[in-house]
Amino acid sequence: MPDLQIHSSSNIEEIADISACDLAFGEPSLLAPVLPRLTSLRWLQATWAGVEPLLDPKLRRDYVLTNARGVFGGLMSEYVFAYLLAHERLLLQKYASQQAGRWDKTPPGTLRGRLIGIVGVGSIGAALAKTAKHFGMRVHGYTRASETCADVDRYFHGDQRLAFAADLDYVVTVAPNTTGTRQLVDAAFLAALPPRAVFVNPGRGSVVDEAALAAALREKRIAGAVLDVFQTEPLPPDHELWRAPNVLITSHTAALSHPVDIAPVFIENYRRLIRRESLNYIVDFERGY
Amino acid sequence: MPDLQIHSSSNIEEIADISACDLAFGEPSLLAPVLPRLTSLRWLQATWAGVEPLLDPKLRRDYVLTNARGVFGGLMSEYVFAYLLAHERLLLQKYASQQAGRWDKTPPGTLRGRLIGIVGVGSIGAALAKTAKHFGMRVHGYTRASETCADVDRYFHGDQRLAFAADLDYVVTVAPNTTGTRQLVDAAFLAALPPRAVFVNPGRGSVVDEAALAAALREKRIAGAVLDVFQTEPLPPDHELWRAPNVLITSHTAALSHPVDIAPVFIENYRRLIRRESLNYIVDFERGY
Repeated sequence: MPDLQIHSSSNIEEIADISACDLAFGEPSLLAPVLPRLTSLRWLQATWAGVEPLLDPKLRRDYVLTNARGVFGGLMSEYVFAYLLAHERLLLQKYASQQAGRWDKTPPGTLRGRLIGIVGVGSIGAALAKTAKHFGMRVHGYTRASETCADVDRYFHGDQRLAFAADLDYVVTVAPNTTGTRQLVDAAFLAALPPRAVFVNPGRGSVVDEAALAAALREKRIAGAVLDVFQTEPLPPDHELWRAPNVLITSHTAALSHPVDIAPVFIENYRRLIRRESLNYIVDFERGY
Repeated sequence: MPDLQIHSSSNIEEIADISACDLAFGEPSLLAPVLPRLTSLRWLQATWAGVEPLLDPKLRRDYVLTNARGVFGGLMSEYVFAYLLAHERLLLQKYASQQAGRWDKTPPGTLRGRLIGIVGVGSIGAALAKTAKHFGMRVHGYTRASETCADVDRYFHGDQRLAFAADLDYVVTVAPNTTGTRQLVDAAFLAALPPRAVFVNPGRGSVVDEAALAAALREKRIAGAVLDVFQTEPLPPDHELWRAPNVLITSHTAALSHPVDIAPVFIENYRRLIRRESLNYIVDFERGY
């Protein structure tokens, strides 16, 4: 490899000659504010899957932006299935029985045969579909156009949104934040879900109408929700979702970026760069992912 | 099929001509007390995997006993991985944070790379090993002699018990109740586990020295335990395990016998019987499984 001068800091202001950097590797939220000063930038490798901070139309787009893909599927799958299994196995109810010293013979449910709907079937959605199949579930997918994942039994697109929702036991949203996914889970979508359905969102807060979701939970029109992302983060202390019935809240920790996962993505792309090959995971600024 | 006269009741005393029955299909605990009156019995299909009530040396053994196998692996896998994932994802801690309205950024762990030890690798242990591999875990197995499961990376037997325990993140016991497995998880075994280890027992209460386990939990010598079975069930209200630290208790509901699973086992064995073929899953009274 040619010499690579590395300026590394958790405080980007400490990098003195930032204008000389032609490559950047870091968190979109940290890099977006200094983008105007990265005047030599040719390539930016994001450590996240979501790159919204860099998609602001006011920011420059005269460089190659690549995101992190193919590394979050395993963690997302652990998150989603931790909560799906906890729901079926009545984990919190059994824990409450234990606290009360009660021998609770309530029969738990099973994932086998249940129908999961996955909104967005990229590398993360495909990982979820694979785990769902491992547990004997049926899998539906809702995508813009792609139908490439063999673990999805049936695909839905565009205006088939409510037909997709109609018979789901679980719906999980892992689509990127785009004009096509914004507020996709709105009052109409929630009304189309059966009352037994559980909504899981480890993807993007923008996909859901939070007021409509809180109302559906309050009125028990769906069985529950597991939420890791929100329109405003941290979720404000007085937000109605904190204490809506049957909601479980985590704090945008479903799939954290770990150096052990992300470094190989950068290294592979750096090798491609110096070999003058096209980079992996190039973001289309217009499409938004 | 030849004519099959069926006497079916949840109260076995209501079956008038019990001495005429040559086949029996039911729960071992219900059938054991009437075994002396089943004078024509040729074959008994148990609806459970465990058949201890029928192994009492005082009971007759002049019939073919078959148990239910190959049907509990999926449910056991859902139980075990519900609790393994809940442990890694800090599910209860995150729930407590939510109750307090706290945005909890504590990074969760991952199953990937963790080492699970499975005690007893029959059809249930093999199902656990397969799910462990799905989540990228390393798998060790402790068995009497068998080494047939391809998802087990390394096998241990007999006096290798403490070497098997030495580096485990999780240990799950799904062995039958035999002289070889009784009190296998004793003070020495628990002392050999690393402090980060979690013990999961959805198998047989007889496999563990409960007093030694309660002491290991109290002294934080292991990280936790998930227990579905006990030496006395229901677990007595004053039992120290109810409130030992880091223990999660369920009430022998890890893998219930569902007719939809068990009926095909009986049907297939009945077909074999009338074709005069050897039955599936014949229990060796001496070996105990």
